[in-house]
Amino acid sequence: MRIFRKKIRLREALVKISEHVSPVGVEEVPLDRAFGRVLAEDVRASVDVPPFDRAARDGYAVRASDTFRATPERPVRLRLSRSGGVCEGECVQIQTGEPLPKGSDAVLMLEFTRNLGDEIEVLKPVTPGKNVSFRGEDVRRGDIVLRKGRILRPYDIGMLAAIRQRTVKVYKKPEVGIISTGDEILDPLADEPQPLKVFDSNSYALAALVEEAGAAPLRLGIVRDAAGVSGLKDAILDGLIGSDVLLVSGGSSVGERDFLADALTELGEILFHGVALRPGEPAGFALVNVNGERKPVFMLPGFPVATIAAFELLVRPALHRMQGMTPVERPSVLARAKRKIPSELGRVDFVRVRLEFEAAEAYATPIRTSGAGVLSSVTRADGFLLIPEEKEGVEQGELVKVFLF
Amino acid sequence: MRIFRKKIRLREALVKISEHVSPVGVEEVPLDRAFGRVLAEDVRASVDVPPFDRAARDGYAVRASDTFRATPERPVRLRLSRSGGVCEGECVQIQTGEPLPKGSDAVLMLEFTRNLGDEIEVLKPVTPGKNVSFRGEDVRRGDIVLRKGRILRPYDIGMLAAIRQRTVKVYKKPEVGIISTGDEILDPLADEPQPLKVFDSNSYALAALVEEAGAAPLRLGIVRDAAGVSGLKDAILDGLIGSDVLLVSGGSSVGERDFLADALTELGEILFHGVALRPGEPAGFALVNVNGERKPVFMLPGFPVATIAAFELLVRPALHRMQGMTPVERPSVLARAKRKIPSELGRVDFVRVRLEFEAAEAYATPIRTSGAGVLSSVTRADGFLLIPEEKEGVEQGELVKVFLF
Repeated sequence: MRIFRKKIRLREALVKISEHVSPVGVEEVPLDRAFGRVLAEDVRASVDVPPFDRAARDGYAVRASDTFRATPERPVRLRLSRSGGVCEGECVQIQTGEPLPKGSDAVLMLEFTRNLGDEIEVLKPVTPGKNVSFRGEDVRRGDIVLRKGRILRPYDIGMLAAIRQRTVKVYKKPEVGIISTGDEILDPLADEPQPLKVFDSNSYALAALVEEAGAAPLRLGIVRDAAGVSGLKDAILDGLIGSDVLLVSGGSSVGERDFLADALTELGEILFHGVALRPGEPAGFALVNVNGERKPVFMLPGFPVATIAAFELLVRPALHRMQGMTPVERPSVLARAKRKIPSELGRVDFVRVRLEFEAAEAYATPIRTSGAGVLSSVTRADGFLLIPEEKEGVEQGELVKVFLF
Repeated sequence: MRIFRKKIRLREALVKISEHVSPVGVEEVPLDRAFGRVLAEDVRASVDVPPFDRAARDGYAVRASDTFRATPERPVRLRLSRSGGVCEGECVQIQTGEPLPKGSDAVLMLEFTRNLGDEIEVLKPVTPGKNVSFRGEDVRRGDIVLRKGRILRPYDIGMLAAIRQRTVKVYKKPEVGIISTGDEILDPLADEPQPLKVFDSNSYALAALVEEAGAAPLRLGIVRDAAGVSGLKDAILDGLIGSDVLLVSGGSSVGERDFLADALTELGEILFHGVALRPGEPAGFALVNVNGERKPVFMLPGFPVATIAAFELLVRPALHRMQGMTPVERPSVLARAKRKIPSELGRVDFVRVRLEFEAAEAYATPIRTSGAGVLSSVTRADGFLLIPEEKEGVEQGELVKVFLF
């Protein structure tokens, strides 16, 4: 494993990345394709919802003043109107959601009336506005109903339908090219097994992580060491022509000559290489000049757990920013450390844990593992916790925030 | 609003539903399409991972016993082997991930050596197995790596790739037909505005909720009251021929004659109609005979917030079961009620709340609203809490579980 003498702190790495990624563009989608997308504009209502005063209950539309003296003992009688409107002493039968007839200002619930054919008896008074849903009560024309940057939830889609917002502007999904490097790996879908080779899991895990982060993955295959720096440069440029950002795993810490670092230096600029993160130390970030633009490239470690940690902490927030979002944390729970978890000052530790629930409390146990190559340490975990740079481990019983996988 | 005299409790409703829904089938998908799907089989590894003993660090493959006496002052010299194997007194330069050469049993890190050309000096001893990742350390051939019922996470996809499991059997996504009923509604994508009509938000919100629950929505449009019971029956049968389950919103509580209840009674059996849930009381559940099968139909209220509450508490768990999952709760946080929230004994209240965070504590404030017709009470909320049947409201300062929208 290469020794990174110029490791930077995780938070500095995040600042550098955030300075060089931005939303990739805006597109207009119909409302029934907008779920989960990020709004690129404020949406204002062009109508009132509801668009008219309407009954909020089944019953009779009345003039409230006609009912003021009603009691079960001395009910008030009202005539069923034939005109559709409600004059003094009249009422109209009405169903939930129907427009309030002219002249009426309240709805009397059926259970407080007695039907006498062409008249009703009112057993209880109502106040003006009772059981009425007024025009604009939900949304007023001109109101901003959903703000730019919002991740559209199912209810938001309902709201867009209610205000007849047939299309919305959303941020484009960033297209994320994914390359694995190395002579020792085979593609499980394309290649037959060979002795002394292993199957590439990074491309597949990364593609799913990209999808989970709301972006569009493009697996671009494996680049062999035999391709050399020039082959790797070609693969990076080809990859970036069809995508907004590139993830290259492996290679960045293999061998004496670092093909990936050499290729990226020739194609642009490496902003950092080596992060005080464990696992994930070999991660790096570069900008590559392509067609007059500078596109971001993430250098990710070859070991699967290291690449997952680096994705989680560096790439995921960047993909959120490229969709116009403020980076969103994973859901988390507070848990107590089941045992002491050691770590070193000056670096962030990404610790996979299992959760157990006892009564109302959650307990986190770190997964015992022998290294960043052991992918089952992630599949067996329920989530991860982070031990910050300024902390030397977590004490038994200490309260920790566990992010859920 | 119709009065439901035979309301059943939410938990009884859930039991009835769970007795009548089951996984809709199994299909085989390639590993790069399996993210987020639910495994319909245990997956066993057909290979060891890693498939051979390999270096976990860059350095020199050695026989540990050769290094036992090494110190910085009295280094041990080892010859670089030319055969590829390691005999006594020999070593081979090795990179992370490469197979351990024959005869070697440990890897010496570069920083504990000095390179003398065709020899190296060893400055520190290593123990056998040091910096070696042994065959099967991650996964042993024959192990169950992922169990039936698991929702496949990104890391699981990486694991499937690592063991070259090219396809997996997953549960089919249930196809969910969605119908809105009522004369007062228009389709925002298909219809022009008309006076005294409103736009259907339920079909669109429900389609997104179905998608969020992992199933496949099919919007089937609006059925007008003019179609009568026979028209509604046709729409239900047509809808069920192309789907596994049907959601019908509106109608179930409109007017004196309940078209939907009549249609479902003629087509099959209503298991319940009316649930002690607010909002959401008019919800119901029926089984309809179609092509020799009995398919489930959910009756959902017309008011958007009521339909969302009924979906959340009744339909979502059913869609999870139809995908072979144990129903999964939404992510939640514990929060303190910012003020007293009243409710009635004997029913479950679905309360939309906003969350504020102060120091390490979360506080939940209920959204003030005048009813189940106000969709903005959901879009403005961060989540919801449930007040159980046996509780008469929540006290100010009480700890509550808030499910996040």
